[in-house]
Amino acid sequence: MLVVQKYGGTSVKNIERIKKVAEKTIQYKNQGNEMVIVVSAMAGETDRLLSLAHEIARFPDEREADVLISTGEQVTAALLALTLKEMGHDAVSLMADQVKISTDSSFGKARIADIEKDRVISQLKKGKIVIIPGFQGVDEEGNITTLGRGGSDTTAVALAASLNADLCEIYTDVDGVYTTDPNICSKARRLDRISYDEMLEMASLGAKVLQIRCVELAKKYNVPILVKSSYEEGKGTLVCREDRTMMEKVVISGVTYNKNEAKITVSKVPDRPGMAAMIFTALSDVNIPVDIIVQNVSRGSYTDITFTVAKADAKKAYKIMADIVKEIGAESVTMDEDIAKVSIVGVGMRSHSGIASKMFSVLANEGINIEAITTSEIKISCVIEAKYGELAVNVLHRAFGLDKQDVEEESEN
Amino acid sequence: MLVVQKYGGTSVKNIERIKKVAEKTIQYKNQGNEMVIVVSAMAGETDRLLSLAHEIARFPDEREADVLISTGEQVTAALLALTLKEMGHDAVSLMADQVKISTDSSFGKARIADIEKDRVISQLKKGKIVIIPGFQGVDEEGNITTLGRGGSDTTAVALAASLNADLCEIYTDVDGVYTTDPNICSKARRLDRISYDEMLEMASLGAKVLQIRCVELAKKYNVPILVKSSYEEGKGTLVCREDRTMMEKVVISGVTYNKNEAKITVSKVPDRPGMAAMIFTALSDVNIPVDIIVQNVSRGSYTDITFTVAKADAKKAYKIMADIVKEIGAESVTMDEDIAKVSIVGVGMRSHSGIASKMFSVLANEGINIEAITTSEIKISCVIEAKYGELAVNVLHRAFGLDKQDVEEESEN
Repeated sequence: MLVVQKYGGTSVKNIERIKKVAEKTIQYKNQGNEMVIVVSAMAGETDRLLSLAHEIARFPDEREADVLISTGEQVTAALLALTLKEMGHDAVSLMADQVKISTDSSFGKARIADIEKDRVISQLKKGKIVIIPGFQGVDEEGNITTLGRGGSDTTAVALAASLNADLCEIYTDVDGVYTTDPNICSKARRLDRISYDEMLEMASLGAKVLQIRCVELAKKYNVPILVKSSYEEGKGTLVCREDRTMMEKVVISGVTYNKNEAKITVSKVPDRPGMAAMIFTALSDVNIPVDIIVQNVSRGSYTDITFTVAKADAKKAYKIMADIVKEIGAESVTMDEDIAKVSIVGVGMRSHSGIASKMFSVLANEGINIEAITTSEIKISCVIEAKYGELAVNVLHRAFGLDKQDVEEESEN
Repeated sequence: MLVVQKYGGTSVKNIERIKKVAEKTIQYKNQGNEMVIVVSAMAGETDRLLSLAHEIARFPDEREADVLISTGEQVTAALLALTLKEMGHDAVSLMADQVKISTDSSFGKARIADIEKDRVISQLKKGKIVIIPGFQGVDEEGNITTLGRGGSDTTAVALAASLNADLCEIYTDVDGVYTTDPNICSKARRLDRISYDEMLEMASLGAKVLQIRCVELAKKYNVPILVKSSYEEGKGTLVCREDRTMMEKVVISGVTYNKNEAKITVSKVPDRPGMAAMIFTALSDVNIPVDIIVQNVSRGSYTDITFTVAKADAKKAYKIMADIVKEIGAESVTMDEDIAKVSIVGVGMRSHSGIASKMFSVLANEGINIEAITTSEIKISCVIEAKYGELAVNVLHRAFGLDKQDVEEESEN
């Protein structure tokens, strides 16, 4: 098998941990696998380098910032190669320009355009373990670029796709993807597998195991990703194509939860074309990302538009809306920071009816009022009062059969 | 003018110092010069990276060690570019593979084979300040190489030669090259200029301002080097071709001094061809560098061979000689660690007679016995008893007219 493994910053935070990574790699190699290892910068290193840059400038030049921070992954790659060689295994580090990993020229957030696989393949054929710094690339002119935070996952998946790897393993702090946040729900259970689409909804909703971008790429090239803990042995979670034989059984894969948003409602917006465009253009002009948007059918010649933004952007968004209200002749704008968003995610809901109504009933039974609802093909989100957030997660988790079987404690937090 | 400037590790040890470097660069740029800046790693950074490598292996793999430590200079190059841009001046960092600086594949001690100047020139023509990490190169296969300690000076001189620069300035801890060590002789004086050959003799004899290798390269391509302090304003010392108009005036440029050697004498070596070869092959086989070698005319069918080695190698060399003595039928071997080597250096001695005899008289007048003598075209070295080292430096410095004119204090230490 050709296996691409990616180790995050905490997995390589010191020489001791790097040795553990080397041992695991050797174990796979000894089983006859060809190994390509993608590494992040040692934990804290990227921040150290960025803080140097910020001593110089509030907004450091992006090209040069990439030259600076790409050294973090380069250091780890060299240290892991040194460790493997010291342990008697042939290894070679290849930088992005040596591989090469071509990107566009969007410094700090470059996107991978192409990966040349020949040099990696020829090193693998020589029996070497190939180590590649994650997060970096090189543009058409040979400038160093970086892929943005979480870019190392993307490097690993892109390499796996390019090399037609049999498996891409991502080692991280957690031992897999959970049905919900174990800090909130003691019954949270590790999923053995999850589909790309479900993972995308989980990731964007706050289960920060894998970057959205990396899952999108894996889905596009059908790269199976096994998310595992670098600290303990375990089966991890396989993120892969939907398994149609499974689909009938599991309806809901997870419950997610977000308390970091605020809800803004613009009331009595004139029901004319272009009103929503004006509202959301005003927000995107100042780079405020909007999460959910709800617009109901109009009452007479008016409609209400509700949306959520990150709490950090809420006051700014509110002020902008206050101006917009006058401009478009709406009645008023209100803001509510005291909300939580609870979502259920599952490809199974495509073929099962009654999932939404079940969710609403479960919440209603606990006396939780729903302030806004949005749905996608495989997700239903409800905005509720903040204080009910944890309760909602727990009751939904149980109602949709996600509680783990071997219950260790009865309490639900 | 096209000016290449090189800043050492202490000159860029923190952001504050990097800002000073940027200010100086801008000052030159504003005077209409084209600027190429070569930087070392921030003071301590190379050692920090090496200590990580040494946590892994006593003898780290050389290719990967170069991948590791080359990041030090890359970080500084990016930080200086960020600083210049923040100050409103266009700058660009170019790594060795981007320039490109081609070397052989001797990792850790690579030698520069060629520098492509086109990309640097095209950036200069766009009005940019070009910043290049010292110490690194790239071999034919695109592997990262490093040039060994002091390699950044070599990068600067090689760039100056390749770009046909008008001047190569090396900024360092000291404000120039001195007639002797100011710690030993309070009358030591900064030289305004010194020839390449004198600098080579001074460097190899212990005046560690410039690496020998970099002076050799400067001599080969006739690159004038101005050595200056990065801490204070001053004229520095120009290392350049011999000035024949000056040559008549100054006979001796400097007095150097080395207390870190031990003297080994092999007595009554049979005066047959191949004896010296056996002795010195035995030392080079175990990588012990020999400094001076003295062999007198033979007394009858025997001769004595004396040489000096670093004190750290002395015991090992002595043991090897003890074996060799039996093998070649010599009488005995003796070792003396209690020595100092004092030398006078100057191109002027080529055209002046009596320099050697004057040196010997000066030492004799102080009651200093000379244990061994070697001479080159522009240098005379005497081995003396260690305790007379500082005295010898002071009296020679005065006798050859090197004492500074504006005497601040009468004591001679």
